[in-house]
Amino acid sequence: MAAIHRFTGTPERPEWDGVEPRPYDLGEAVAGTKRVLVGPDDGAGNFALRYFEIVPGGKSSLDLHDHDHGIVIVKGRARVLIGRESHELGPGDVAYIGGRQEHQLTNLGDGPLGFLCVNPARATGPAGSRP
Amino acid sequence: MAAIHRFTGTPERPEWDGVEPRPYDLGEAVAGTKRVLVGPDDGAGNFALRYFEIVPGGKSSLDLHDHDHGIVIVKGRARVLIGRESHELGPGDVAYIGGRQEHQLTNLGDGPLGFLCVNPARATGPAGSRP
Repeated sequence: MAAIHRFTGTPERPEWDGVEPRPYDLGEAVAGTKRVLVGPDDGAGNFALRYFEIVPGGKSSLDLHDHDHGIVIVKGRARVLIGRESHELGPGDVAYIGGRQEHQLTNLGDGPLGFLCVNPARATGPAGSRP
Repeated sequence: MAAIHRFTGTPERPEWDGVEPRPYDLGEAVAGTKRVLVGPDDGAGNFALRYFEIVPGGKSSLDLHDHDHGIVIVKGRARVLIGRESHELGPGDVAYIGGRQEHQLTNLGDGPLGFLCVNPARATGPAGSRP
């Protein structure tokens, strides 16, 4: 199986063929959008690669689960909480968040915070869909 | 466990703190460089995220293995062979290469071809290190 998702957007408004933006909803308010660039719909069973955008002032859910994440900041500024540590990251910066590490990304900038996030196959937790 | 690799380079010469560039060597000639942005050295056991650059005129090895890949082109132009299909891809384009699909990336441009590549934990094949 193979799949191609061509980039059809701009850096400001990224879009990919065959990838639907979904509201990244934390229950109280929409914090941004989530796009599954590689995932089950492509036949990928070992990992998923997602692109998130968080609105200015927004943050991801404060998550704690068994699986780990790899993150690459694409645009904007983030405060990344991992366990008891906090890091301010910008474009190109990479974070590895191990399993059982509480984590949350906060958008520190005036524009959207965009980041890629890798999920392993054995992702767990609510909806299996949170960063 | 957690790890941060700050981007310290430029789009032309990407570098990350704590990430050593390694020759991406196909045995005959160096085809470029490989950087493990997230991998075993970070404690990551479920997946690896790597950044490759292929020199102009260069190509990745023609690979066939059980594990799959997720690829995001960062810069340059690539011809991506997946099974019997070939796709010309550019910056932002995403490819999913399923397991047991023969694959190869060829740099079609005058500058380096840069791409991110996700490997699942159960990567197999020679050195487990090829794109």
